[in-house]
Amino acid sequence: MFEDAELGHAIDKATFDARVPTLRSDLLDAQFALKDSRAFPVVLLVGGVEGSGRGETVNALTSWLDPRHVEVNGLGDPSDEELERPRMWRFWRALPPKGKIGVFFGSWYTYPILQASLAKGKVRWAKLDKRIDEIVRFERMLSEEGALVLKFWFHLSKNAQHKRIKELKKDPHTRWRVSGIDEDYFDRYDRFREVSERTLRHTSTALAPWLVVEGVDRRYRELFVAEELLRAMKARLAAPKVARPTPARSSDAPEVDSRRTLLSELDLKKKLPKPRYEKELEKWQGQLAMLTRQKRFRDRSVVIVFEGNDAAGKGGTIRRVTSAVDARIVRVVPIAAPTDEEKAHPYLWRFWRQLPRHGNMTIFDRSWYGRVLVERVEGFCTPYDWERAYGEINDFEDDMFGHGTVVAKFWLAISKEEQLRRFKEREEVSFKAFKITEEDWRNRKKWDAYGDAVCDMVARTSSARAPWTMVEANDKYHARVKVLKTLCQRLEAVLEK
Amino acid sequence: MFEDAELGHAIDKATFDARVPTLRSDLLDAQFALKDSRAFPVVLLVGGVEGSGRGETVNALTSWLDPRHVEVNGLGDPSDEELERPRMWRFWRALPPKGKIGVFFGSWYTYPILQASLAKGKVRWAKLDKRIDEIVRFERMLSEEGALVLKFWFHLSKNAQHKRIKELKKDPHTRWRVSGIDEDYFDRYDRFREVSERTLRHTSTALAPWLVVEGVDRRYRELFVAEELLRAMKARLAAPKVARPTPARSSDAPEVDSRRTLLSELDLKKKLPKPRYEKELEKWQGQLAMLTRQKRFRDRSVVIVFEGNDAAGKGGTIRRVTSAVDARIVRVVPIAAPTDEEKAHPYLWRFWRQLPRHGNMTIFDRSWYGRVLVERVEGFCTPYDWERAYGEINDFEDDMFGHGTVVAKFWLAISKEEQLRRFKEREEVSFKAFKITEEDWRNRKKWDAYGDAVCDMVARTSSARAPWTMVEANDKYHARVKVLKTLCQRLEAVLEK
Repeated sequence: MFEDAELGHAIDKATFDARVPTLRSDLLDAQFALKDSRAFPVVLLVGGVEGSGRGETVNALTSWLDPRHVEVNGLGDPSDEELERPRMWRFWRALPPKGKIGVFFGSWYTYPILQASLAKGKVRWAKLDKRIDEIVRFERMLSEEGALVLKFWFHLSKNAQHKRIKELKKDPHTRWRVSGIDEDYFDRYDRFREVSERTLRHTSTALAPWLVVEGVDRRYRELFVAEELLRAMKARLAAPKVARPTPARSSDAPEVDSRRTLLSELDLKKKLPKPRYEKELEKWQGQLAMLTRQKRFRDRSVVIVFEGNDAAGKGGTIRRVTSAVDARIVRVVPIAAPTDEEKAHPYLWRFWRQLPRHGNMTIFDRSWYGRVLVERVEGFCTPYDWERAYGEINDFEDDMFGHGTVVAKFWLAISKEEQLRRFKEREEVSFKAFKITEEDWRNRKKWDAYGDAVCDMVARTSSARAPWTMVEANDKYHARVKVLKTLCQRLEAVLEK
Repeated sequence: MFEDAELGHAIDKATFDARVPTLRSDLLDAQFALKDSRAFPVVLLVGGVEGSGRGETVNALTSWLDPRHVEVNGLGDPSDEELERPRMWRFWRALPPKGKIGVFFGSWYTYPILQASLAKGKVRWAKLDKRIDEIVRFERMLSEEGALVLKFWFHLSKNAQHKRIKELKKDPHTRWRVSGIDEDYFDRYDRFREVSERTLRHTSTALAPWLVVEGVDRRYRELFVAEELLRAMKARLAAPKVARPTPARSSDAPEVDSRRTLLSELDLKKKLPKPRYEKELEKWQGQLAMLTRQKRFRDRSVVIVFEGNDAAGKGGTIRRVTSAVDARIVRVVPIAAPTDEEKAHPYLWRFWRQLPRHGNMTIFDRSWYGRVLVERVEGFCTPYDWERAYGEINDFEDDMFGHGTVVAKFWLAISKEEQLRRFKEREEVSFKAFKITEEDWRNRKKWDAYGDAVCDMVARTSSARAPWTMVEANDKYHARVKVLKTLCQRLEAVLEK
């Protein structure tokens, strides 16, 4: 990968001075076209070896652009806030919205590469490969969501790096930049090179390519990055909108045997008489209170998803959970239509931003499953987009699991008749009328389509790590107790480990 | 993943008999439309638990289709031939051409899943994940190349499997089918389920989805598979041709510093006087002969790629290699325009089929790099397609490396002036005239575009595992000796390990 970046590329001053003015005005034009069209975000990654002028180049680039529409994220060591959330959280929250350029100086590559190259003993290639795989999946999602992803790797040969760092150390004005670099560092050069070559080779794709920049000459570096950025932005702005491929599967089709589905097999007659309900409720709420007060809970977090038919009793069930938990550690996030800011980001962004810190619990009243439920049924996205969402959602929940987050997902199911009864009740009782809208009646007409989507959703996204629990909710008492009991059992199993 | 496939799905005889006749004629219609359009191949995978009726279903399906256009690959244990080639070779050679349906009963999933679930001690998840990653990349390539990939997983719950196998064992007509299954097998059920759930979850994508079939009822299984296949074929046949996305990188653009490239930095003046050439040639040919006769060579294979400017002397160099090696173990594969059969497969297929067995050497006179050289420069494929080829080629060569194949790649470079001299000489000398065509003169006009493509190719696909060697070839003597010497050194390093 690095052969071309060891040739001593350089640009003389006259050429540089002649090219920069046009380049700058072209860059600004492209930037404004991007801003006005809000067609896509630009995700620009900067990585590479020490002393290769990454920071200077980013500075030059941002000085040429309109700073209002560029966000530079100099991501160093993660903060406490960040350490207490899944690994990718800090990057998700820094993703630029459509119309903007986000520069990541330090990125999702930094730690995997450093860890692999600095580790004592043999390089743990299998571990690195796992990270690489996660990165490829993440960047594919970014591309599928429309982001223009450009990755610049600043390279110096071993000799060039040695020379450069010596120079920087000599000059009192630049010494600080290389203060952490000692002789050991050079000993590790070969391994760093091997690790980064493998990483780059496996993560350089047509839609998220690496561009290797030789870091010796300032003018060359700056022109290289600016011209590649300009070209890529212009090409993407001019590109025709690409249609989505047809998925191989046709989940919209009727089931071969529709008499038995995950939903039809639920016994909605399950009931809990009030006296027993009250006893059980007390028992499980008490247990949940105890569990969330355990010391071990402070190194864990909980994410709970509530989905269900309209009027299935999600709100009431959620209240039974929250009332058992210290109000300072629990938060309920109701999911309605996305805000403008949310729409300008990949669809999972609005959920990533809500993930709890250690020792906390977030309850999603409706969730990221909207993509494979309402968006699928109503045709708000293409079949290709909701089909790929299953995989992206699994990745998302795997990230949470990997971080130690307990993920519990509940589908509250009621019968069509029970829903009608509750709708009517809501219309009749004045203080419940706000709960029922035209949309609820419209959704009801698509009962079967929603049912198919629910069955597919459970089949594709239920796993030991993040299981779905189907809750028979015609009887609210039964539903609430089942949810609380399931939660306690999941938490207990995890905290006991 | 398996919840829906444990509900006891079944189809009664009347329903089945009513549906099958139409289904069969629809299937045949779709099959003929596919055959006539030759639009894409169908790759249909069948996997799942023992006793779930996979074989019977495949038999039923093929009896409903026109057998001339279905290929059923019952892949069990690999043959000697197959074991001596990279892991994926046996699957590549079984890939169906466009217009046909290839059924894989036993596939690239079989061994990863069995190995992980049958291993003693803990499941080696990292190893499984690596295989999963390779599979995802392979199937993505298949989809990008146009294949319709459908994967059916036949599932039985633990109880259903137990019952089913007991039944099969009782009946003397079916006993043979489950002869290898003992009580131990059931003990492993849970682990098998865990491993396959993880594998399915991570390999179920929009373009290559898993469809989980409950295996209890014969009629249900058969209808399920046949109807899903029919739907997917019809949907794909009706789908509009999707345009390729615009790659983020624009390799076609001029270099920022074009004065120095990997090619311009070559010292083409390098020369070897004839007397020294003869001595060196003898020396390195002798060494190559020795190395390929070593006992250890029998567990290795060698793949050599020759690319270079027209008239750079590939043929003469290749002859100097082959004349040093036992003719029984070396084969030269000249790559010209693909045959019809080759065009009907993914572009790497024609190279996979030529890979050598252990103890053998294959020399490609031009190669898979055609995609990022001539096809790129001449616009025979879209920028998206040749951009993704870098990654696919890296995967291909990684497969060879992983199998112990030595991969050596040579670019023979001559100057534009030297090429002109050789072209003219070819035109003038009658026995050389066949070597020069109009096409050579046309290619020459695109000298710079080819140069850019070569530099990108080396930068993107040279690695420690499969390095490119740039050969200064204005002087044929120098070129031949450099190639032989490099080959010997590579082989020596590998055989000494």
